[in-house]
Amino acid sequence: MTITVIGVGLIGGSMAISLKENGFAKTIIGVDKKTENLDKALRRRIIDEAMSLEQAIAVSDIIILAIPVNAMLQVLPIILDKVDRQIVLDVGSTKVQLAHAAEKHPNRGRYVATHPMAGTEFSGPEAAIPNLFDHKCTVICDAEKSDKDALAKTIALYESLPMNIVEMDSIQHDVHTAYISHISHISSFALALTVLEKERNENRIFELASGGFGSTVRLAKSSPDMWTPIFQQNRDNVLDVLDEHINSLAQFRTLLIKNDFERIYQLIEEANSISKILK
Amino acid sequence: MTITVIGVGLIGGSMAISLKENGFAKTIIGVDKKTENLDKALRRRIIDEAMSLEQAIAVSDIIILAIPVNAMLQVLPIILDKVDRQIVLDVGSTKVQLAHAAEKHPNRGRYVATHPMAGTEFSGPEAAIPNLFDHKCTVICDAEKSDKDALAKTIALYESLPMNIVEMDSIQHDVHTAYISHISHISSFALALTVLEKERNENRIFELASGGFGSTVRLAKSSPDMWTPIFQQNRDNVLDVLDEHINSLAQFRTLLIKNDFERIYQLIEEANSISKILK
Repeated sequence: MTITVIGVGLIGGSMAISLKENGFAKTIIGVDKKTENLDKALRRRIIDEAMSLEQAIAVSDIIILAIPVNAMLQVLPIILDKVDRQIVLDVGSTKVQLAHAAEKHPNRGRYVATHPMAGTEFSGPEAAIPNLFDHKCTVICDAEKSDKDALAKTIALYESLPMNIVEMDSIQHDVHTAYISHISHISSFALALTVLEKERNENRIFELASGGFGSTVRLAKSSPDMWTPIFQQNRDNVLDVLDEHINSLAQFRTLLIKNDFERIYQLIEEANSISKILK
Repeated sequence: MTITVIGVGLIGGSMAISLKENGFAKTIIGVDKKTENLDKALRRRIIDEAMSLEQAIAVSDIIILAIPVNAMLQVLPIILDKVDRQIVLDVGSTKVQLAHAAEKHPNRGRYVATHPMAGTEFSGPEAAIPNLFDHKCTVICDAEKSDKDALAKTIALYESLPMNIVEMDSIQHDVHTAYISHISHISSFALALTVLEKERNENRIFELASGGFGSTVRLAKSSPDMWTPIFQQNRDNVLDVLDEHINSLAQFRTLLIKNDFERIYQLIEEANSISKILK
Protein backbone atom coordinates (compact mmCIF):
# COMPACT_ATOMS: atom_id res chain seq x y z
CA MET A 1 0.00 0.00 0.00
CA THR A 2 1.22 3.48 -0.83
CA ILE A 3 0.33 6.10 1.75
CA THR A 4 0.75 9.85 1.42
CA VAL A 5 1.12 11.96 4.52
CA ILE A 6 0.29 15.62 3.97
CA GLY A 7 2.04 17.54 6.74
CA VAL A 8 5.05 15.59 8.09
CA GLY A 9 4.90 17.02 11.61
CA LEU A 10 4.28 15.42 15.00
CA ILE A 11 1.14 13.49 14.03
CA GLY A 12 1.75 12.89 10.31
CA GLY A 13 5.39 11.99 10.89
CA SER A 14 4.61 9.64 13.78
CA MET A 15 1.93 7.87 11.72
CA ALA A 16 4.41 7.53 8.85
CA ILE A 17 6.96 5.91 11.16
CA SER A 18 4.47 3.43 12.64
CA LEU A 19 2.71 2.50 9.40
CA LYS A 20 6.01 1.80 7.68
CA GLU A 21 7.41 -0.09 10.66
CA ASN A 22 4.38 -2.37 11.04
CA GLY A 23 4.26 -3.10 7.29
CA PHE A 24 0.84 -1.56 6.69
CA ALA A 25 2.48 0.83 4.21
CA LYS A 26 4.97 -0.29 1.61
CA THR A 27 5.82 3.25 0.58
CA ILE A 28 5.31 6.51 2.43
CA ILE A 29 5.15 9.71 0.41
CA GLY A 30 5.50 13.08 2.12
CA VAL A 31 3.84 16.32 1.02
CA ASP A 32 4.52 19.53 2.94
CA LYS A 33 4.44 23.19 2.03
CA LYS A 34 7.74 23.64 3.86
CA THR A 35 10.60 22.06 1.87
CA GLU A 36 12.74 22.05 5.01
CA ASN A 37 10.20 19.73 6.67
CA LEU A 38 10.40 17.34 3.70
CA ASP A 39 14.20 17.46 3.84
CA LYS A 40 14.21 16.65 7.55
CA ALA A 41 11.64 13.88 7.05
CA LEU A 42 13.70 12.34 4.24
CA ARG A 43 16.92 12.56 6.23
CA ARG A 44 15.22 10.93 9.25
CA ARG A 45 13.78 8.29 6.85
CA ILE A 46 10.28 9.10 8.06
CA ILE A 47 9.17 9.24 4.42
CA ASP A 48 10.45 7.36 1.39
CA GLU A 49 9.79 10.12 -1.14
CA ALA A 50 8.72 13.75 -1.31
CA MET A 51 6.24 14.77 -4.02
CA SER A 52 3.85 17.53 -5.00
CA LEU A 53 0.26 17.13 -3.82
CA GLU A 54 -0.94 16.24 -7.30
CA GLN A 55 1.73 13.62 -8.00
CA ALA A 56 1.25 12.08 -4.56
CA ILE A 57 -2.52 11.74 -4.89
CA ALA A 58 -2.16 10.04 -8.27
CA VAL A 59 0.02 7.21 -6.94
CA SER A 60 -1.47 6.71 -3.46
CA ASP A 61 -4.01 4.33 -1.97
CA ILE A 62 -4.52 6.33 1.21
CA ILE A 63 -3.95 10.04 1.81
CA ILE A 64 -3.58 11.23 5.39
CA LEU A 65 -4.22 14.92 5.98
CA ALA A 66 -2.19 16.03 9.01
CA ILE A 67 -1.99 19.81 8.84
CA PRO A 68 -3.48 22.54 11.07
CA VAL A 69 -7.28 22.46 11.00
CA ASN A 70 -7.67 25.83 9.28
CA ALA A 71 -5.52 24.64 6.36
CA MET A 72 -7.56 21.40 6.20
CA LEU A 73 -10.67 23.40 5.34
CA GLN A 74 -8.91 24.60 2.18
CA VAL A 75 -7.04 21.45 1.25
CA LEU A 76 -9.63 18.71 1.81
CA PRO A 77 -11.98 19.84 -1.03
CA ILE A 78 -9.00 20.18 -3.39
CA ILE A 79 -7.95 16.60 -2.62
CA LEU A 80 -11.50 15.27 -2.98
CA ASP A 81 -11.64 16.91 -6.44
CA LYS A 82 -8.72 14.75 -7.49
CA VAL A 83 -9.50 11.32 -6.02
CA ASP A 84 -11.47 8.38 -7.42
CA ARG A 85 -10.43 5.06 -5.83
CA GLN A 86 -8.20 6.65 -3.15
CA ILE A 87 -9.15 7.06 0.50
CA VAL A 88 -8.63 10.41 2.22
CA LEU A 89 -8.55 10.71 5.97
CA ASP A 90 -7.83 13.66 8.21
CA VAL A 91 -6.44 13.54 11.73
CA GLY A 92 -7.67 16.94 12.93
CA SER A 93 -8.73 17.89 16.47
CA THR A 94 -12.01 19.55 15.39
CA LYS A 95 -14.58 17.96 13.15
CA VAL A 96 -17.77 20.01 12.64
CA GLN A 97 -16.42 22.63 10.24
CA LEU A 98 -14.49 20.08 8.21
CA ALA A 99 -17.62 17.93 7.97
CA HIS A 100 -19.43 20.94 6.47
CA ALA A 101 -16.60 21.55 4.01
CA ALA A 102 -16.82 17.96 2.72
CA GLU A 103 -20.56 17.40 3.01
CA LYS A 104 -21.76 18.22 -0.48
CA HIS A 105 -18.69 17.00 -2.34
CA PRO A 106 -19.49 14.29 -4.93
CA ASN A 107 -16.53 12.28 -3.60
CA ARG A 108 -17.58 12.62 0.10
CA GLY A 109 -17.67 8.83 0.35
CA ARG A 110 -13.91 8.57 -0.19
CA TYR A 111 -13.31 10.69 2.92
CA VAL A 112 -13.14 9.34 6.48
CA ALA A 113 -13.08 11.84 9.37
CA THR A 114 -10.76 10.60 12.12
CA HIS A 115 -9.04 11.91 15.22
CA PRO A 116 -6.30 9.81 16.77
CA MET A 117 -6.21 11.06 20.37
CA ALA A 118 -2.49 11.20 20.94
CA GLY A 119 0.17 13.85 20.88
CA THR A 120 2.93 15.62 22.73
CA GLU A 121 3.63 19.31 23.28
CA PHE A 122 6.25 19.29 20.50
CA SER A 123 5.80 19.89 16.77
CA GLY A 124 7.50 19.47 13.41
CA PRO A 125 9.16 16.39 11.85
CA GLU A 126 11.72 16.36 14.67
CA ALA A 127 8.83 15.67 17.07
CA ALA A 128 7.70 12.54 15.21
CA ILE A 129 8.22 9.42 17.33
CA PRO A 130 7.48 5.69 17.11
CA ASN A 131 4.70 4.25 19.27
CA LEU A 132 2.96 7.59 19.80
CA PHE A 133 -0.42 5.97 19.15
CA ASP A 134 0.05 2.63 20.94
CA HIS A 135 -3.22 1.55 22.53
CA LYS A 136 -4.65 5.06 22.52
CA CYS A 137 -8.07 5.91 21.11
CA THR A 138 -9.07 7.06 17.61
CA VAL A 139 -12.44 8.67 17.02
CA ILE A 140 -14.12 8.08 13.66
CA CYS A 141 -16.83 10.64 12.96
CA ASP A 142 -19.93 10.37 10.80
CA ALA A 143 -18.84 6.91 9.66
CA GLU A 144 -22.09 6.37 7.74
CA LYS A 145 -21.07 9.07 5.27
CA SER A 146 -17.93 7.17 4.16
CA ASP A 147 -17.88 4.42 1.56
CA LYS A 148 -17.75 0.96 3.16
CA ASP A 149 -14.35 0.06 1.70
CA ALA A 150 -12.89 3.42 2.77
CA LEU A 151 -14.17 2.94 6.30
CA ALA A 152 -12.94 -0.65 6.51
CA LYS A 153 -9.44 0.24 5.32
CA THR A 154 -9.25 3.20 7.70
CA ILE A 155 -10.24 0.99 10.62
CA ALA A 156 -7.61 -1.54 9.55
CA LEU A 157 -5.01 1.24 9.41
CA TYR A 158 -5.73 2.42 12.95
CA GLU A 159 -5.98 -1.11 14.32
CA SER A 160 -2.54 -1.82 12.88
CA LEU A 161 -0.96 0.92 15.03
CA PRO A 162 -2.60 -0.54 17.28
CA MET A 163 -5.36 1.84 18.40
CA ASN A 164 -8.87 1.42 19.80
CA ILE A 165 -11.68 2.87 17.74
CA VAL A 166 -14.68 4.84 18.97
CA GLU A 167 -17.40 6.14 16.67
CA MET A 168 -19.47 9.28 17.17
CA ASP A 169 -20.82 12.17 15.13
CA SER A 170 -18.84 15.38 14.53
CA ILE A 171 -20.97 17.44 16.89
CA GLN A 172 -20.47 15.04 19.83
CA HIS A 173 -16.77 14.84 19.00
CA ASP A 174 -16.27 18.60 19.21
CA VAL A 175 -18.06 18.82 22.57
CA HIS A 176 -16.04 15.96 24.05
CA THR A 177 -12.65 17.22 22.85
CA ALA A 178 -13.43 20.67 24.29
CA TYR A 179 -13.64 18.93 27.69
CA ILE A 180 -10.83 16.47 27.53
CA SER A 181 -8.29 18.24 25.39
CA HIS A 182 -8.94 21.87 24.43
CA ILE A 183 -9.61 23.17 27.95
CA SER A 184 -6.44 21.49 29.28
CA HIS A 185 -4.47 23.45 26.73
CA ILE A 186 -6.09 26.80 27.56
CA SER A 187 -5.56 26.10 31.24
CA SER A 188 -1.87 25.35 30.62
CA PHE A 189 -1.34 28.43 28.44
CA ALA A 190 -3.02 30.62 31.07
CA LEU A 191 -1.02 29.09 33.92
CA ALA A 192 2.24 29.61 32.03
CA LEU A 193 1.31 33.26 31.39
CA THR A 194 0.42 33.81 35.07
CA VAL A 195 3.75 32.45 36.24
CA LEU A 196 5.81 34.11 33.49
CA GLU A 197 4.29 37.47 34.43
CA LYS A 198 5.36 36.95 38.04
CA GLU A 199 8.80 35.80 36.98
CA ARG A 200 9.62 39.17 35.43
CA ASN A 201 10.01 40.45 38.95
CA GLU A 202 10.97 37.30 40.79
CA ASN A 203 13.59 35.50 38.79
CA ARG A 204 14.27 32.85 41.41
CA ILE A 205 10.87 31.32 41.01
CA PHE A 206 11.91 28.75 38.45
CA GLU A 207 14.76 27.32 40.46
CA LEU A 208 11.98 25.70 42.41
CA ALA A 209 9.73 24.50 39.60
CA SER A 210 9.31 20.81 40.29
CA GLY A 211 7.37 17.89 38.88
CA GLY A 212 3.85 19.14 39.62
CA PHE A 213 4.35 22.44 37.87
CA GLY A 214 6.05 20.84 34.90
CA SER A 215 3.21 18.44 34.28
CA THR A 216 0.40 21.03 34.43
CA VAL A 217 2.33 23.51 32.30
CA ARG A 218 3.81 21.02 29.81
CA LEU A 219 1.05 21.66 27.26
CA ALA A 220 1.85 25.39 27.29
CA LYS A 221 4.73 24.53 24.94
CA SER A 222 2.20 23.54 22.25
CA SER A 223 2.28 25.23 18.85
CA PRO A 224 0.13 28.32 18.18
CA ASP A 225 -0.13 27.31 14.50
CA MET A 226 -1.87 24.14 15.52
CA TRP A 227 -3.91 25.40 18.47
CA THR A 228 -5.23 28.81 17.38
CA PRO A 229 -7.32 27.30 14.55
CA ILE A 230 -8.58 24.56 16.88
CA PHE A 231 -9.87 27.18 19.32
CA GLN A 232 -11.30 29.12 16.38
CA GLN A 233 -13.17 26.16 14.93
CA ASN A 234 -14.41 24.90 18.29
CA ARG A 235 -14.98 28.36 19.78
CA ASP A 236 -18.51 27.84 21.10
CA ASN A 237 -17.80 24.56 22.89
CA VAL A 238 -14.49 25.86 24.24
CA LEU A 239 -16.26 28.96 25.57
CA ASP A 240 -18.85 26.81 27.36
CA VAL A 241 -16.20 24.63 29.02
CA LEU A 242 -14.03 27.64 29.81
CA ASP A 243 -16.98 29.29 31.59
CA GLU A 244 -17.52 26.14 33.64
CA HIS A 245 -13.82 25.93 34.47
CA ILE A 246 -13.66 29.57 35.55
CA ASN A 247 -16.74 28.96 37.73
CA SER A 248 -15.07 25.96 39.27
CA LEU A 249 -11.95 28.04 40.09
CA ALA A 250 -14.18 30.85 41.38
CA GLN A 251 -15.76 28.33 43.75
CA PHE A 252 -12.33 27.59 45.25
CA ARG A 253 -11.74 31.34 45.45
CA THR A 254 -14.98 31.97 47.34
CA LEU A 255 -14.26 29.12 49.76
CA LEU A 256 -10.75 30.45 50.42
CA ILE A 257 -12.15 33.92 51.09
CA LYS A 258 -14.73 32.42 53.46
CA ASN A 259 -12.07 30.20 55.08
CA ASP A 260 -14.34 27.22 54.42
CA PHE A 261 -11.66 24.53 54.42
CA GLU A 262 -14.13 21.77 55.23
CA ARG A 263 -15.82 22.34 51.88
CA ILE A 264 -12.43 22.64 50.14
CA TYR A 265 -11.53 19.24 51.63
CA GLN A 266 -14.76 17.80 50.20
CA LEU A 267 -14.10 19.30 46.75
CA ILE A 268 -10.61 17.80 46.68
CA GLU A 269 -12.11 14.44 47.63
CA GLU A 270 -14.60 14.76 44.77
CA ALA A 271 -11.80 15.71 42.38
CA ASN A 272 -9.87 12.62 43.56
CA SER A 273 -12.50 10.41 41.95
CA ILE A 274 -10.85 11.26 38.62
CA SER A 275 -8.39 8.51 39.57
CA LYS A 276 -11.08 5.89 38.97
CA ILE A 277 -11.09 7.03 35.37
CA LEU A 278 -7.51 8.07 34.68
CA LYS A 279 -5.08 5.31 35.52
CA MET B 1 23.55 8.10 62.09
CA THR B 2 20.09 7.26 63.40
CA ILE B 3 17.28 9.08 61.63
CA THR B 4 13.65 9.18 62.66
CA VAL B 5 10.99 9.83 60.07
CA ILE B 6 7.71 11.07 61.54
CA GLY B 7 5.05 10.28 58.95
CA VAL B 8 6.10 7.38 56.71
CA GLY B 9 4.14 8.51 53.64
CA LEU B 10 5.19 9.61 50.16
CA ILE B 11 7.84 12.13 51.27
CA GLY B 12 8.95 10.63 54.59
CA GLY B 13 9.02 7.12 53.18
CA SER B 14 10.93 8.14 50.06
CA MET B 15 13.52 9.99 52.15
CA ALA B 16 13.87 6.94 54.38
CA ILE B 17 14.53 4.72 51.35
CA SER B 18 17.14 7.06 49.85
CA LEU B 19 18.96 7.91 53.09
CA LYS B 20 19.31 4.25 54.00
CA GLU B 21 20.33 3.25 50.48
CA ASN B 22 23.05 5.91 50.19
CA GLY B 23 24.43 5.11 53.65
CA PHE B 24 23.70 8.51 55.19
CA ALA B 25 21.52 6.74 57.77
CA LYS B 26 22.58 3.62 59.58
CA THR B 27 19.18 3.11 61.15
CA ILE B 28 15.80 4.50 60.16
CA ILE B 29 13.09 4.70 62.81
CA GLY B 30 9.48 5.25 61.83
CA VAL B 31 6.88 7.13 63.84
CA ASP B 32 3.31 7.37 62.57
CA LYS B 33 -0.05 7.84 64.25
CA LYS B 34 -1.44 5.11 61.99
CA THR B 35 -0.12 1.69 63.04
CA GLU B 36 -1.07 0.30 59.63
CA ASN B 37 1.37 2.75 58.00
CA LEU B 38 4.15 1.55 60.31
CA ASP B 39 3.27 -2.07 59.51
CA LYS B 40 3.40 -1.39 55.78
CA ALA B 41 6.66 0.55 56.13
CA LEU B 42 8.23 -2.29 58.12
CA ARG B 43 7.04 -4.93 55.66
CA ARG B 44 8.40 -2.88 52.75
CA ARG B 45 11.66 -2.42 54.75
CA ILE B 46 11.34 1.34 54.40
CA ILE B 47 12.05 1.63 58.12
CA ASP B 48 14.17 -0.56 60.41
CA GLU B 49 12.08 -0.05 63.52
CA ALA B 50 8.82 1.51 64.66
CA MET B 51 8.79 3.49 67.93
CA SER B 52 6.76 6.00 69.87
CA LEU B 53 7.63 9.65 69.33
CA GLU B 54 9.33 9.91 72.71
CA GLN B 55 11.49 6.78 72.33
CA ALA B 56 12.45 7.75 68.81
CA ILE B 57 13.58 11.27 69.73
CA ALA B 58 15.75 9.91 72.54
CA VAL B 59 17.82 7.64 70.28
CA SER B 60 17.97 9.78 67.10
CA ASP B 61 20.50 12.19 65.62
CA ILE B 62 18.10 13.67 63.09
CA ILE B 63 14.31 13.83 63.20
CA ILE B 64 12.46 14.44 59.95
CA LEU B 65 8.92 15.76 60.29
CA ALA B 66 6.92 14.63 57.24
CA ILE B 67 3.27 14.99 58.18
CA PRO B 68 0.52 17.33 56.89
CA VAL B 69 1.36 20.97 57.63
CA ASN B 70 -1.50 21.49 60.08
CA ALA B 71 -0.26 18.60 62.23
CA MET B 72 3.27 20.03 62.06
CA LEU B 73 2.11 23.15 63.89
CA GLN B 74 1.16 20.93 66.84
CA VAL B 75 4.00 18.45 66.73
CA LEU B 76 7.05 20.65 66.09
CA PRO B 77 6.92 22.48 69.48
CA ILE B 78 6.43 19.13 71.27
CA ILE B 79 9.54 17.75 69.59
CA LEU B 80 11.56 20.88 70.30
CA ASP B 81 10.63 20.51 73.98
CA LYS B 82 12.33 17.12 74.01
CA VAL B 83 15.54 17.67 72.00
CA ASP B 84 18.97 18.82 73.06
CA ARG B 85 21.71 17.66 70.67
CA GLN B 86 19.28 16.33 68.00
CA ILE B 87 18.43 18.10 64.77
CA VAL B 88 14.78 18.49 63.74
CA LEU B 89 13.82 19.28 60.19
CA ASP B 90 10.44 19.53 58.54
CA VAL B 91 9.67 18.94 54.87
CA GLY B 92 6.41 20.92 54.66
CA SER B 93 5.08 22.86 51.67
CA THR B 94 4.31 26.03 53.65
CA LYS B 95 6.73 27.79 55.94
CA VAL B 96 5.48 31.07 57.45
CA GLN B 97 3.11 29.63 60.06
CA LEU B 98 5.54 26.95 61.10
CA ALA B 99 8.26 29.58 61.46
CA HIS B 100 5.98 31.46 63.88
CA ALA B 101 5.27 28.28 65.84
CA ALA B 102 9.01 27.67 66.36
CA GLU B 103 10.22 31.26 66.65
CA LYS B 104 10.26 31.77 70.40
CA HIS B 105 11.18 28.23 71.37
CA PRO B 106 14.41 28.01 73.41
CA ASN B 107 15.54 25.13 71.16
CA ARG B 108 14.77 27.00 67.90
CA GLY B 109 18.42 26.56 66.87
CA ARG B 110 18.03 22.78 66.62
CA TYR B 111 15.30 23.20 63.98
CA VAL B 112 15.95 23.61 60.25
CA ALA B 113 13.02 24.57 57.99
CA THR B 114 13.27 22.73 54.66
CA HIS B 115 11.13 21.96 51.65
CA PRO B 116 12.36 19.33 49.22
CA MET B 117 10.49 20.22 46.00
CA ALA B 118 9.53 16.77 44.83
CA GLY B 119 6.47 14.60 44.95
CA THR B 120 3.90 12.62 43.05
CA GLU B 121 0.11 12.64 43.18
CA PHE B 122 0.10 9.52 45.37
CA SER B 123 0.29 9.22 49.15
CA GLY B 124 0.94 6.78 51.99
CA PRO B 125 3.87 4.37 52.53
CA GLU B 126 2.90 2.50 49.35
CA ALA B 127 3.70 5.72 47.41
CA ALA B 128 7.28 5.90 48.75
CA ILE B 129 9.80 5.39 45.95
CA PRO B 130 13.57 5.47 45.49
CA ASN B 131 15.15 8.41 43.63
CA LEU B 132 12.15 10.72 44.15
CA PHE B 133 14.49 13.59 45.04
CA ASP B 134 17.30 13.01 42.54
CA HIS B 135 18.71 16.35 41.36
CA LYS B 136 15.61 18.26 42.39
CA CYS B 137 15.69 21.38 44.54
CA THR B 138 15.39 21.77 48.33
CA VAL B 139 14.59 25.13 49.86
CA ILE B 140 16.08 25.92 53.27
CA CYS B 141 14.27 28.77 54.99
CA ASP B 142 15.50 31.27 57.58
CA ALA B 143 18.84 29.42 57.72
CA GLU B 144 20.34 32.06 60.06
CA LYS B 145 17.95 30.93 62.82
CA SER B 146 19.37 27.40 62.90
CA ASP B 147 22.49 26.35 64.80
CA LYS B 148 25.53 26.03 62.53
CA ASP B 149 25.98 22.31 63.10
CA ALA B 150 22.27 21.64 62.52
CA LEU B 151 22.35 23.58 59.25
CA ALA B 152 25.54 21.88 58.06
CA LYS B 153 24.21 18.39 58.76
CA THR B 154 20.90 19.17 57.07
CA ILE B 155 22.71 20.42 53.97
CA ALA B 156 24.83 17.26 53.97
CA LEU B 157 21.66 15.17 54.23
CA TYR B 158 20.04 16.82 51.21
CA GLU B 159 23.26 16.81 49.21
CA SER B 160 23.52 13.07 49.80
CA LEU B 161 20.20 12.43 48.03
CA PRO B 162 21.51 14.28 45.84
CA MET B 163 19.56 17.55 45.79
CA ASN B 164 20.41 21.18 45.00
CA ILE B 165 19.91 23.65 47.79
CA VAL B 166 18.39 27.12 47.58
CA GLU B 167 18.07 29.45 50.56
CA MET B 168 15.35 32.03 51.11
CA ASP B 169 13.18 33.33 53.94
CA SER B 170 9.81 31.79 54.84
CA ILE B 171 7.83 34.68 53.40
CA GLN B 172 9.51 34.46 49.99
CA HIS B 173 9.13 30.68 50.05
CA ASP B 174 5.38 30.83 50.57
CA VAL B 175 4.91 33.32 47.72
CA HIS B 176 7.02 31.24 45.31
CA THR B 177 5.36 27.93 46.12
CA ALA B 178 1.92 29.51 45.61
CA TYR B 179 3.03 30.18 42.02
CA ILE B 180 4.89 27.07 41.12
CA SER B 181 3.07 24.42 43.11
CA HIS B 182 -0.12 25.41 44.92
CA ILE B 183 -1.89 27.02 41.95
CA SER B 184 -1.13 23.99 39.74
CA HIS B 185 -2.93 21.83 42.25
CA ILE B 186 -6.00 24.09 42.46
CA SER B 187 -6.10 24.26 38.68
CA SER B 188 -5.99 20.45 38.45
CA PHE B 189 -8.66 19.95 41.11
CA ALA B 190 -10.92 22.47 39.37
CA LEU B 191 -10.34 20.92 35.94
CA ALA B 192 -11.15 17.45 37.27
CA LEU B 193 -14.36 18.77 38.84
CA THR B 194 -15.38 20.50 35.59
CA VAL B 195 -14.94 17.34 33.58
CA LEU B 196 -16.43 15.01 36.20
CA GLU B 197 -19.54 17.20 36.31
CA LYS B 198 -19.89 16.87 32.53
CA GLU B 199 -19.29 13.14 32.70
CA ARG B 200 -22.41 12.55 34.77
CA ASN B 201 -24.35 13.12 31.59
CA GLU B 202 -21.82 12.10 28.98
CA ASN B 203 -20.26 8.88 30.04
CA ARG B 204 -18.29 8.36 26.84
CA ILE B 205 -16.08 11.34 27.50
CA PHE B 206 -13.35 9.38 29.22
CA GLU B 207 -12.87 6.84 26.49
CA LEU B 208 -11.11 9.70 24.74
CA ALA B 209 -9.02 11.07 27.57
CA SER B 210 -5.50 11.09 26.18
CA GLY B 211 -2.06 12.21 27.23
CA GLY B 212 -2.72 15.95 27.44
CA PHE B 213 -5.68 15.57 29.74
CA GLY B 214 -3.91 13.05 31.92
CA SER B 215 -0.94 15.30 32.53
CA THR B 216 -2.92 18.42 33.45
CA VAL B 217 -5.30 16.49 35.69
CA ARG B 218 -2.75 14.14 37.26
CA LEU B 219 -2.37 16.34 40.34
CA ALA B 220 -6.13 16.14 40.98
CA LYS B 221 -5.44 12.75 42.52
CA SER B 222 -3.51 14.44 45.36
CA SER B 223 -4.55 13.88 48.97
CA PRO B 224 -7.00 16.30 50.65
CA ASP B 225 -5.32 15.58 54.01
CA MET B 226 -2.09 17.00 52.68
CA TRP B 227 -3.44 19.80 50.49
CA THR B 228 -6.29 21.35 52.50
CA PRO B 229 -3.91 22.52 55.27
CA ILE B 230 -1.45 23.83 52.68
CA PHE B 231 -4.16 26.01 51.13
CA GLN B 232 -5.23 27.05 54.63
CA GLN B 233 -1.74 28.09 55.72
CA ASN B 234 -0.90 29.81 52.46
CA ARG B 235 -4.38 31.21 51.87
CA ASP B 236 -3.42 34.84 51.14
CA ASN B 237 -0.73 34.02 48.58
CA VAL B 238 -2.87 31.33 46.97
CA LEU B 239 -5.76 33.80 46.67
CA ASP B 240 -3.50 36.35 44.96
CA VAL B 241 -2.23 33.83 42.42
CA LEU B 242 -5.68 32.36 41.91
CA ASP B 243 -7.02 35.84 41.09
CA GLU B 244 -4.25 36.32 38.54
CA HIS B 245 -4.90 32.91 37.04
CA ILE B 246 -8.66 33.54 36.76
CA ASN B 247 -7.85 36.88 35.08
CA SER B 248 -5.57 35.15 32.67
CA LEU B 249 -8.32 32.64 31.76
CA ALA B 250 -10.83 35.49 31.52
CA GLN B 251 -8.52 37.14 28.99
CA PHE B 252 -8.74 34.04 26.77
CA ARG B 253 -12.51 34.09 27.29
CA THR B 254 -12.83 37.72 26.19
CA LEU B 255 -10.66 37.10 23.12
CA LEU B 256 -12.75 34.05 22.15
CA ILE B 257 -15.94 36.10 22.51
CA LYS B 258 -14.42 38.86 20.36
CA ASN B 259 -13.09 36.30 17.85
CA ASP B 260 -9.67 37.90 18.24
CA PHE B 261 -7.60 34.90 17.19
CA GLU B 262 -4.60 37.02 16.27
CA ARG B 263 -4.22 38.02 19.89
CA ILE B 264 -4.84 34.42 21.02
CA TYR B 265 -2.02 33.35 18.70
CA GLN B 266 0.26 35.93 20.34
CA LEU B 267 -0.70 34.79 23.85
CA ILE B 268 0.10 31.18 22.98
CA GLU B 269 3.46 32.32 21.59
CA GLU B 270 4.15 34.16 24.86
CA ALA B 271 3.12 31.08 26.86
CA ASN B 272 5.52 29.00 24.72
CA SER B 273 8.45 30.86 26.26
CA ILE B 274 7.91 28.67 29.34
CA SER B 275 9.92 26.09 27.40
CA LYS B 276 13.07 28.16 27.89
CA ILE B 277 12.63 27.56 31.59
CA LEU B 278 11.06 24.13 31.84
CA LYS B 279 13.09 21.53 29.99
